[in-house]
Amino acid sequence: MKYCSNCGETVEHKIPEGDSFPRYVCSACDIIHYQNPNNVVGCIAESSDGRILLCKRAIEPRLGFWTIPAGFMENKETTAEGALRETMEEAEAKVKIASLQSVIDVPFASQVHIMYRGTLIDDAFGCGPESLECHLVAEKDIPWDDIAFPTVTFALKSFFADRTRNEYEVHTAAINRNRWDIAQPLPF
Amino acid sequence: MKYCSNCGETVEHKIPEGDSFPRYVCSACDIIHYQNPNNVVGCIAESSDGRILLCKRAIEPRLGFWTIPAGFMENKETTAEGALRETMEEAEAKVKIASLQSVIDVPFASQVHIMYRGTLIDDAFGCGPESLECHLVAEKDIPWDDIAFPTVTFALKSFFADRTRNEYEVHTAAINRNRWDIAQPLPF
Repeated sequence: MKYCSNCGETVEHKIPEGDSFPRYVCSACDIIHYQNPNNVVGCIAESSDGRILLCKRAIEPRLGFWTIPAGFMENKETTAEGALRETMEEAEAKVKIASLQSVIDVPFASQVHIMYRGTLIDDAFGCGPESLECHLVAEKDIPWDDIAFPTVTFALKSFFADRTRNEYEVHTAAINRNRWDIAQPLPF
Repeated sequence: MKYCSNCGETVEHKIPEGDSFPRYVCSACDIIHYQNPNNVVGCIAESSDGRILLCKRAIEPRLGFWTIPAGFMENKETTAEGALRETMEEAEAKVKIASLQSVIDVPFASQVHIMYRGTLIDDAFGCGPESLECHLVAEKDIPWDDIAFPTVTFALKSFFADRTRNEYEVHTAAINRNRWDIAQPLPF
């Protein structure tokens, strides 16, 4: 950020009075421009025979790798609405949400990934413009080495573990502070 | 937003090619300025005798009303780190986190409130600059009519219900789409 989005003058990067963090502050109109983490919302969508909807990414980052439908949450929607919207956009699929599945911190990217689980309505799906292809994939066929993001790996692995014991929980985890790496369950 | 924070020229509000939502787009450098929901992170902090740490707000909104320590999540931190930071800032208290307690959508404000529960270390606390006073309050003495935000009411009520049956869950809820109102548990 170099210019104030309110008045167009230059901004300074400094700690405002009474604050603890450096912010972009306008040198003319004094507005403080806060910058905060973004949520990524996604959905583990299960077909009637227990397969999972996966999308091969048509866009960077991680073009060509596999993910569950997920993307940035938009203003004025709920986390679940965002997860349903992304599932429609990326895989042209409607889902009935069953429960919140995981909340995964990605501090180095200033993101929180919030995943739901649900069931595909009528097992119908297609392929949206952000996907190269979409498939229903059985647990034994999940391409673990070609999953786009470790948050997706964590969500899928914890989902399958829950499904095996037939008891679903909300899982919490955090990604390594310095890079994309394995998601570690939180120590509590 | 009126001006581009990258180059200082004026922005247009339009749907970029390939997008589904109107965004602020710079008419000179073509940068798209995305705006996304913010997370509020907070903590239900329990003393050794089961009382809860409440803060009377010294700032707007809801000055003079009671809340658990909570505030906007910052970049580069996890949700739990944010909850601990806010508890230190607002009540000068250290907490050992026990678990994620609730995830509450506030779509009309484009916020998600993420609350943890934990125990006060050594039952010690003070009063930070954003609080008029801080107290440990027993369940029977919670000032339900003077709680600052319905997300806090939802978090506290679901926490006490869990504590009574000695089984803690992660609770999900959403606030009415049009105004601050009672948080309703999600229908799944």
